[in-house]
Amino acid sequence: MTSPNTPYVIGHGTDVHRFDHGQPCRLACLEWPGEAGLAGHSDGDAAAHAACDALLSAAGLGDLGSNYGTDRPEWAGASGAALLAETARRVRDAGWAIGNVSVQVVGNRPRIGSRRAEAEAAMAAAVGAPVRLSATTTDGLGFTGRGEGVAATAVALLYQP
Amino acid sequence: MTSPNTPYVIGHGTDVHRFDHGQPCRLACLEWPGEAGLAGHSDGDAAAHAACDALLSAAGLGDLGSNYGTDRPEWAGASGAALLAETARRVRDAGWAIGNVSVQVVGNRPRIGSRRAEAEAAMAAAVGAPVRLSATTTDGLGFTGRGEGVAATAVALLYQP
Amino acid sequence: MTSPNTPYVIGHGTDVHRFDHGQPCRLACLEWPGEAGLAGHSDGDAAAHAACDALLSAAGLGDLGSNYGTDRPEWAGASGAALLAETARRVRDAGWAIGNVSVQVVGNRPRIGSRRAEAEAAMAAAVGAPVRLSATTTDGLGFTGRGEGVAATAVALLYQP
Repeated sequence: MTSPNTPYVIGHGTDVHRFDHGQPCRLACLEWPGEAGLAGHSDGDAAAHAACDALLSAAGLGDLGSNYGTDRPEWAGASGAALLAETARRVRDAGWAIGNVSVQVVGNRPRIGSRRAEAEAAMAAAVGAPVRLSATTTDGLGFTGRGEGVAATAVALLYQP
Repeated sequence: MTSPNTPYVIGHGTDVHRFDHGQPCRLACLEWPGEAGLAGHSDGDAAAHAACDALLSAAGLGDLGSNYGTDRPEWAGASGAALLAETARRVRDAGWAIGNVSVQVVGNRPRIGSRRAEAEAAMAAAVGAPVRLSATTTDGLGFTGRGEGVAATAVALLYQP
Repeated sequence: MTSPNTPYVIGHGTDVHRFDHGQPCRLACLEWPGEAGLAGHSDGDAAAHAACDALLSAAGLGDLGSNYGTDRPEWAGASGAALLAETARRVRDAGWAIGNVSVQVVGNRPRIGSRRAEAEAAMAAAVGAPVRLSATTTDGLGFTGRGEGVAATAVALLYQP
């Protein structure tokens, strides 16, 4: 069941972090001065984490928890970029090439649009493949609409090189 | 980082709109007489908007906000079909062919099932490629379960023709 | 519009079920003794249902509701594995091969990680193709964070054999 008869596989991942106003904000492999931070075992970078989960799932390598979870203290406080780069390394070590990753940030703040190119470049540098970053809000609805936290979703395409 | 070594790319998008009972309901490129409308800068068509974001993200062209946002008054009130058709044009202008789009509407109302074929045909006509439309509810949970609004999620597959 | 010029199509699906403490828990094609069950027309297996919706959408075959809904009493109480196997059969009958499915469970309980390999094997046996299963939480936010229910999201890749 581990060798499909097509060179392509896809994966999906989501992540959510709660705002923690006492922390610096790190999201999409960037720092966001003046924005509320995100809580987490690592740096709370929901965009990077969703991308990691999409990549790991596509490759059949488990998820963030099984790779870098709270029982792996060496990853406590790791940056999103460090997790993304290590994830990409593990995916390639498993024999896959990375086609692209598409990530969407869902939340009121920070506003991604003004720094999209910079964030996409930072994430692509970590992954070693194109990463597209979009953003949306939820029209005031749900926990993202109430400004309680940030969600991110991602899909990833891998192929056998 | 913009030219992966595979002809395929994928993208993901979500959108949420709050019900506005004073507006006509437009969703999945159809009008839904007798149903509560959806608020928005455009016509609130969350299904079309999620499909646009998936297509734009796959092609590396930003998102709805950067293409048609509130600082682009010429798109105020634009229909979902108009945004989808323009998005498909921009994606093709960027050198991509559109494989397919898969969209899911999440909410209590309107009930998509009875008009699925009609909605899929309307969306496919706008995109110029197959669009599949599904629907689900959230078992009474969250803002969609409480009937406060409609969410939609989409994935899109593009390829180099 | 039903025959794209590429052998690949992708699909996306989500599902949500509310906890029902009076039911046994069935999720990701496994039984989870001691865990709160999930309510539903069938067995409430949100992970299997999201995978079904992703497969059906990719193939252009509608969704769970149109295939196995409440107007199809023969499917009442059907297990997630039974629905997945029947869905895979319908997808193949429509001329598609299944590349892979990626499913993520979003919720506090049950903890998927300890039984991931077992769940992936059970889902892959039903689908007849690789299924990857990941899990995440929402940091205490939203209905999944409050422990009201479980959500699952999935993507599926199909191809013309």
